[in-house]
Amino acid sequence: MKFTGSHILSITQFEREQIEQLFAVADRMEPYAHRERVTRVLDGAILGNMFFEPSTRTRVSFGCAFNLLGGEVRETTGFESSALAKGESLYDTARVLSGYSDVIVMRHPTSGSVAEFARASRVPVINGGDGSNEHPSQALLDLYTIQKELRHKGREGIDGLRIALIGDLKYGRTVHSLCKLLCLFNNISVTLIAPDELRMPGDIVESLRAAGNTVVESDAMEASISNVDIAYSTRIQEERFASKEEANLYRGRYRLNQTIYTRYCEPNTVIMHPLPRDSRAEANELDNDLNENPNLAIFRQADNGVLVRMALFALILDVADQVDRHARDVNWYTERRF
Amino acid sequence: MKFTGSHILSITQFEREQIEQLFAVADRMEPYAHRERVTRVLDGAILGNMFFEPSTRTRVSFGCAFNLLGGEVRETTGFESSALAKGESLYDTARVLSGYSDVIVMRHPTSGSVAEFARASRVPVINGGDGSNEHPSQALLDLYTIQKELRHKGREGIDGLRIALIGDLKYGRTVHSLCKLLCLFNNISVTLIAPDELRMPGDIVESLRAAGNTVVESDAMEASISNVDIAYSTRIQEERFASKEEANLYRGRYRLNQTIYTRYCEPNTVIMHPLPRDSRAEANELDNDLNENPNLAIFRQADNGVLVRMALFALILDVADQVDRHARDVNWYTERRF
Amino acid sequence: MKFTGSHILSITQFEREQIEQLFAVADRMEPYAHRERVTRVLDGAILGNMFFEPSTRTRVSFGCAFNLLGGEVRETTGFESSALAKGESLYDTARVLSGYSDVIVMRHPTSGSVAEFARASRVPVINGGDGSNEHPSQALLDLYTIQKELRHKGREGIDGLRIALIGDLKYGRTVHSLCKLLCLFNNISVTLIAPDELRMPGDIVESLRAAGNTVVESDAMEASISNVDIAYSTRIQEERFASKEEANLYRGRYRLNQTIYTRYCEPNTVIMHPLPRDSRAEANELDNDLNENPNLAIFRQADNGVLVRMALFALILDVADQVDRHARDVNWYTERRF
Repeated sequence: MKFTGSHILSITQFEREQIEQLFAVADRMEPYAHRERVTRVLDGAILGNMFFEPSTRTRVSFGCAFNLLGGEVRETTGFESSALAKGESLYDTARVLSGYSDVIVMRHPTSGSVAEFARASRVPVINGGDGSNEHPSQALLDLYTIQKELRHKGREGIDGLRIALIGDLKYGRTVHSLCKLLCLFNNISVTLIAPDELRMPGDIVESLRAAGNTVVESDAMEASISNVDIAYSTRIQEERFASKEEANLYRGRYRLNQTIYTRYCEPNTVIMHPLPRDSRAEANELDNDLNENPNLAIFRQADNGVLVRMALFALILDVADQVDRHARDVNWYTERRF
Repeated sequence: MKFTGSHILSITQFEREQIEQLFAVADRMEPYAHRERVTRVLDGAILGNMFFEPSTRTRVSFGCAFNLLGGEVRETTGFESSALAKGESLYDTARVLSGYSDVIVMRHPTSGSVAEFARASRVPVINGGDGSNEHPSQALLDLYTIQKELRHKGREGIDGLRIALIGDLKYGRTVHSLCKLLCLFNNISVTLIAPDELRMPGDIVESLRAAGNTVVESDAMEASISNVDIAYSTRIQEERFASKEEANLYRGRYRLNQTIYTRYCEPNTVIMHPLPRDSRAEANELDNDLNENPNLAIFRQADNGVLVRMALFALILDVADQVDRHARDVNWYTERRF
Repeated sequence: MKFTGSHILSITQFEREQIEQLFAVADRMEPYAHRERVTRVLDGAILGNMFFEPSTRTRVSFGCAFNLLGGEVRETTGFESSALAKGESLYDTARVLSGYSDVIVMRHPTSGSVAEFARASRVPVINGGDGSNEHPSQALLDLYTIQKELRHKGREGIDGLRIALIGDLKYGRTVHSLCKLLCLFNNISVTLIAPDELRMPGDIVESLRAAGNTVVESDAMEASISNVDIAYSTRIQEERFASKEEANLYRGRYRLNQTIYTRYCEPNTVIMHPLPRDSRAEANELDNDLNENPNLAIFRQADNGVLVRMALFALILDVADQVDRHARDVNWYTERRF
């Protein structure tokens, strides 16, 4: 895949080379996202931010990323009930809406709909999540976070990573995508921690092994998180179960807190989570007592999402090499409280 | 009417001279809408894009048009339930909201409400659709498309146009407005194709004839589309019928597809539609097999909407002559897939 | 309080010195809000305009204020149902959302929630209204309007003000906050006009007196508005009563119209109202026949809201002294109809 002018619909489009290219550009976006510098490289460009299913943080993250490159954002939230109720096809919607902007981010509740939309679109389309199918920018920001956290600990590159994935591995779109991306790297050791009924689908386990990686499956958390670089916790995907009662059988099965972390994990094990984490007492997969733990990377993950989305826009619209040329230092108060 | 500082509430405000002025400015907007150039002529200006009734494409089209001139957009969608529920008058709403922007686009479900709002507004107001009453920018973009499509075929100007209007001519706000605009031109031949119960209102037919134009009425499509420059198809306005069942009596009455087009139409007859078209099997007024027909102008219509709305803003805010002075070439990827 | 980098959560943060500083900056924002000049001082900055409870005018006013300083606005309206339904804490929401912008305005239906959000936010947060608790920018724009209207009549400063507050003084968040601010000034004479059941809470009356001001309470409007500079009318806070019937007992109790104004008020008494005013016949607290009265300041209040919010942003982000340096004259039509 060449980035310029491409749709970004699935992580299966990516080879290791593109991942590395994307992450290198994301690194260069830091001074802009951290507000040390401002760039106007996309001054005059318009993003069509089309969220036919609500997702505040993904929507705002994409919108901010485009603004941070100097572009404008036109937004739609909620289902475009009127036109669809009048019988309009997704083809027509795409032909029309793609006349309004330079690039489109689209979230839609139906699997495959974003790809269908993209086929009719006249501008590049980024999949912002299509039902249970794909959400590629989330998987990319997860992998980018892994690389960055490892580098922070003095290790360059993702090869050799030891990672535990914890929770609902059957329905979690995020962990499926992440595993597929990990197949592009070497010498990965993956520990899959899930209740028996929520194990990672077999084809994904097979792919990991076929790529030469080590996979261990377990249903006990404490024993399995002692030798990993990353402990990646996930939420029970309640909406995917037959009933709330069924989901509740698994909720709270794995709870990571500071006591368990101190007792079982290696020092500096990084904690990740795709967010939102379920902070209610009955779930509490990552306890609030971890909030002061410097290895809790969950908010850095969200921050990294902006960098990765800036990089996607910059590469798709072919301005990655021009960002610094249209830049200046910021002139307003930017001290962040951490 | 002088454009500068004017409200745009109804197509009845327009004389031929203003139409020609508007379309000349719209022509000059092409390099900006096509992303060959970027202008910042409205840098710092704010559009209040107030949609008290949902309409994704009209809202986004106006918003993009303003962004493409360099301005910012503040938006409201959905009914401002709170203030109205608290008993606020439209006068008060208008006095307040018009303090926030340089120009307002307003859509409202109630006929006449936009004009009432405009009377109290302190800045120019463009009617983005007020119920069954008016939607002037739609009629203007239709007429602009006609002129542009004819020019593409080597004919300058709208005089002498032969056009067929097909479908629900009784309730279609779009075709009513278009006919009123056609009265400003000479030598127009209008063929009205509708079921007997959905014929064009008599006063509009009279106006066309009084303006010296030829009007033929028919209830059979195939026989009547053989000698026209434009075949303008419309949707059954389901929401205007007493029941869905009554609307269904007329749905699918006229279906234009590639076979009929080839057999009955002159070569290069242009196909138009105000969109959304009803692509469901029971309606299917314009078949998808026309999508590859280069004379299907329905998406060019939508694109032209951006040009016409840019021209409206530029004229109302008196910057039409300054657009090119604040311009530069674009620096990002813009190749459109067609 | 130092403005730079501060959260603005409550009017209790303000001393007289900050009020005077804020209003001086607001004065300097006039050429920009009046569209005589454009500034780009916040070019590249992003406001997160987070309205978890609808409020069109407060939302648009903040958004416009930020745009008028040259910044971009990313917006959320409605309750972020998804993440909260998934059990996310306000802490997590704040950590994530504050990574997307340089400053956040937040409205939330729950008292205290904005302060809780601010504690976790990494960027400054302005309270845009948290239930019945606080709405500091409204109180500030009211006080700013008082100062400006007095100046217009040749009097400098708020000391010595004579003001009548009329209506639901028990539940009106606005008048509570205004009274607290008035305690920072000297020699204020406050007349509180309310039905016995809707009197101003005793602690606020006490604070006013403790600050050395004169307070008179009354339940008759006409007799009590004859010696004031400002007559500040309010709406019955229907949503705070046990039933609509109970609220209706008080609705329409005090109606100010042009006849009463002429007969009872001193010439040039200024009329204020926090808006929306209830224009329905059964309430009609400020009659439409006052609309032509040049002393009706209610829409100037709304306009002043933009100035005060621009000043808040400029001070919090520490660009108040740079606004004029990044400025130019406007180049588009700006004549306002008044």
